[in-house]
Amino acid sequence: MTEPPFRRVVVIGAGLMGTSVALALRRFGVEVLLEDADPGNLRVAVSLGAGVPVTPGDAPRAEQADLVVVGVPPAALGTVIADALARFPSAVVTDLGSVKAAALADTRAHAPAGAGLDRYVGGHPMAGSEQSGPLAARADLFDGRAWAVTPHADSRPDAVAAVERLARTCGALPVQLSPGEHDEAVALVSHLPQVASTVVAGLLTTAAEGHLVLAGQGLRDVTRIAGGDPDLWTQILSANAEPVARLLHEAADNLHRVAHTLEKRDAAEAGLADLRNSLERGATGVRRLPGKHGAQPEAFSAVPVLLPDQPGELARLFADVGAAGVNIEDVRIDHSPNTPAGLVELWVHQDTVPALLEALAHHGWDVHG
Amino acid sequence: MTEPPFRRVVVIGAGLMGTSVALALRRFGVEVLLEDADPGNLRVAVSLGAGVPVTPGDAPRAEQADLVVVGVPPAALGTVIADALARFPSAVVTDLGSVKAAALADTRAHAPAGAGLDRYVGGHPMAGSEQSGPLAARADLFDGRAWAVTPHADSRPDAVAAVERLARTCGALPVQLSPGEHDEAVALVSHLPQVASTVVAGLLTTAAEGHLVLAGQGLRDVTRIAGGDPDLWTQILSANAEPVARLLHEAADNLHRVAHTLEKRDAAEAGLADLRNSLERGATGVRRLPGKHGAQPEAFSAVPVLLPDQPGELARLFADVGAAGVNIEDVRIDHSPNTPAGLVELWVHQDTVPALLEALAHHGWDVHG
Repeated sequence: MTEPPFRRVVVIGAGLMGTSVALALRRFGVEVLLEDADPGNLRVAVSLGAGVPVTPGDAPRAEQADLVVVGVPPAALGTVIADALARFPSAVVTDLGSVKAAALADTRAHAPAGAGLDRYVGGHPMAGSEQSGPLAARADLFDGRAWAVTPHADSRPDAVAAVERLARTCGALPVQLSPGEHDEAVALVSHLPQVASTVVAGLLTTAAEGHLVLAGQGLRDVTRIAGGDPDLWTQILSANAEPVARLLHEAADNLHRVAHTLEKRDAAEAGLADLRNSLERGATGVRRLPGKHGAQPEAFSAVPVLLPDQPGELARLFADVGAAGVNIEDVRIDHSPNTPAGLVELWVHQDTVPALLEALAHHGWDVHG
Repeated sequence: MTEPPFRRVVVIGAGLMGTSVALALRRFGVEVLLEDADPGNLRVAVSLGAGVPVTPGDAPRAEQADLVVVGVPPAALGTVIADALARFPSAVVTDLGSVKAAALADTRAHAPAGAGLDRYVGGHPMAGSEQSGPLAARADLFDGRAWAVTPHADSRPDAVAAVERLARTCGALPVQLSPGEHDEAVALVSHLPQVASTVVAGLLTTAAEGHLVLAGQGLRDVTRIAGGDPDLWTQILSANAEPVARLLHEAADNLHRVAHTLEKRDAAEAGLADLRNSLERGATGVRRLPGKHGAQPEAFSAVPVLLPDQPGELARLFADVGAAGVNIEDVRIDHSPNTPAGLVELWVHQDTVPALLEALAHHGWDVHG
């Protein structure tokens, strides 16, 4: 059996994030000790199999932990991290907080000189849920997610390495950033969308009777995160107030601008062009997000197939490919003048190309070129 | 074999929506004739098995259609609907457009007196995709969705009934509204979220190098619909300019207000309370959306289980229930003083209660009360 990635880990705060980290570590046989000020949270986390509670008699054992993970609300981070540095004098200490510069400043304010601040390295797994509490915790919550690792100037290299190992053990991809860079980034990719979602959802409270029955998937997607815990988000946004406020003003100005364009639309074609530019900019922004295709574009291949000009041929092609167990990632039909009229490109994962070609040949499809 | 719901349907516009309607009708053996100004779209739709193209020799047959479904871009709706009323003198005519008052006004402007406007009833299926074109079409696109049916003052009752039958044939739930009510409703549930999503996604174009790697599922959800077709959305928003502009101004004011609260947060606790209220209002708005639980709350039942006070018991309970094939919709743990400490409520679909009780008994769980 391989060595566990950590010998003993203390998780302080058995909420959604802390319990999920504990569950992820338990998969590898790591010994996890749990603490939470709320006995209910602690009971649920223990009951889920996330670890065992630290009892007074355990103190000496807990002190030998090699890693402490602090998963408490943002407003409490500084005091709890500073306290952990004092209580676990040989452990690396990290946290799961959503804002990093404020957590570091608060920790410095509470940690006396010589308290071992060089053993602290901030962390922030980019995963979560609009739910909260240990009941929503999952061992695979971090699978394939980014995990920001935010060393400060004095962080020890071995502490940074330990936090990166934690991220990888939880199935995440560690990404190193300074605390300040991190906060700028999350203001854009997390806090702005949170407030925008909240504002759209807030206006739903003004809906006339019966109008919400027209809600479709788009509205549900846009407003899902607005269901998050208001107390938690008050703390997160307050802790990153400056970068968030700047982006909110910018977003608000853009909304006003679109509204003005709509109000003046009879005036000129220029208004429509403005509106279209705003929409095009949004579509461009979405394409910049790393995604299914964006992440590893090289992993997909195009197989061109020539379709007979008969009704239902594309349906038959999809059925044949599906029956062969090959997943079509994308389909493109080129309408350019020099392309044969019935040419369809099937984009599939490159590993499945041989199976696709065999299925196409078996069913008599004409693979082009 | 049962009678098909329609004898012969003409679908004008073989884009995402028109082709999906055609595919949905084909499931019931309805004869579908397709038209599209773009021969490429038409070929793809035919190739998917959505119907056959109307050729010049088919004109007499097409004229006997009992329903015409117009699925063209908003700016073209009025002319194409008026034209369809003239070309198909005995057919009910409906459309799939996202804005209804403007479509009706444009149709009136293009349909001469006696053109049979009483055979026109607007429609708007509340389904779609950030993709467009017939390749993205699916026969089940409308399953379980609302489908707005918007008669005007002169619409014939049999025409209204035919459009409601179309909605149900496509698996959707018809919802009757006046064109004006519809436009107010979609400004809130569709057009506002679209622009909010667009503005958030647009700001992603300003991201510093490497910051977007921190993007999580929340941002992806909020910005998904911003990937929609800018030309189509320019037309939709322009056609519903007034109600949309009003909501955009309101949303912008709310964003500025949150930003100001964040900027002044050091001043007073009152600022935090304001911020929290905004977030709470958003969470309230999300809960108002009809959803998995909201739609049919009576369909779920709570089964209380008493947990032994041992590590891992909740994990074992979930595993036992899962192995019995019962899907847990929600879990609640009551921390109130009068409740036994280990009491867990499993919320399941009421049809599965007997199977759940049997599985719990089989594994020795203590079902409470």
